[in-house]
Amino acid sequence: MTRSYMYEAEAVWVGERRAQVRSPGAPVLEVSSPPEFQGQAGVWTPETLFVASVNACFILTFLAIAHLSKLPIVDLRVSAWGKLEKGEGAGYQITEILVKPLLMIRSEVDRERAERLLKKAEQSCFISNSIKAIVRLEPEILVSA
Amino acid sequence: MTRSYMYEAEAVWVGERRAQVRSPGAPVLEVSSPPEFQGQAGVWTPETLFVASVNACFILTFLAIAHLSKLPIVDLRVSAWGKLEKGEGAGYQITEILVKPLLMIRSEVDRERAERLLKKAEQSCFISNSIKAIVRLEPEILVSA
Repeated sequence: MTRSYMYEAEAVWVGERRAQVRSPGAPVLEVSSPPEFQGQAGVWTPETLFVASVNACFILTFLAIAHLSKLPIVDLRVSAWGKLEKGEGAGYQITEILVKPLLMIRSEVDRERAERLLKKAEQSCFISNSIKAIVRLEPEILVSA
Repeated sequence: MTRSYMYEAEAVWVGERRAQVRSPGAPVLEVSSPPEFQGQAGVWTPETLFVASVNACFILTFLAIAHLSKLPIVDLRVSAWGKLEKGEGAGYQITEILVKPLLMIRSEVDRERAERLLKKAEQSCFISNSIKAIVRLEPEILVSA
């Protein structure tokens, strides 16, 4: 038998080409299409939410793994970009996600382990497992002075 | 040559197992793992952001298609659930998304066209095209009194 969990998000039309997205207990999000697809700027879009989902999964998975492995983290920020591309004879699709973690650790001794755990986080992330895109990981590791 | 666009989201560690997710110009989101994976309740999670991305894409694609087809819409709200499941010998993965639009139209005459356009929206959605999950569409169409 397999374990399973359900996650909910509701979208409500609020006029023209805008909607609000809700998930039980979490703050309401305004969403629109990206400006290049006739939407408005300054709000979340399906595409940026998609990249946010992959990135949030990566960082939270890494934090869990680092905690289990007792790796001390000084600072961590992760940039991520998703490439939306129109294939030959196909519709638009997000084909690639570039994930660039900037991790600051306390000691040079931890560098190799940190690199290994970053790779492991990418490979274990539930959302990476759920998408068709290739995920490219380009970590940068610094040691705090 | 294919057209492509890049979409960005940054994740910043803010202590313990929490992060903030940002995308240029959009409001900052607090994120955590779901409570059943040692996270905290009341914020967005990678899983709910994933379902939100699919749902936002569906509703915005439908609004664009309905606008082009001059279908009058009275009201529209879309519930969506993502099923996270651990496969045999594999990690967790979102395997299925159930999308339930509740669409209110002005006239019975438009019902068949509305149904067709809802299906078309699901098939054209960029995010549906980008995920491994099966997307199940279960529309309900009402006519305003």
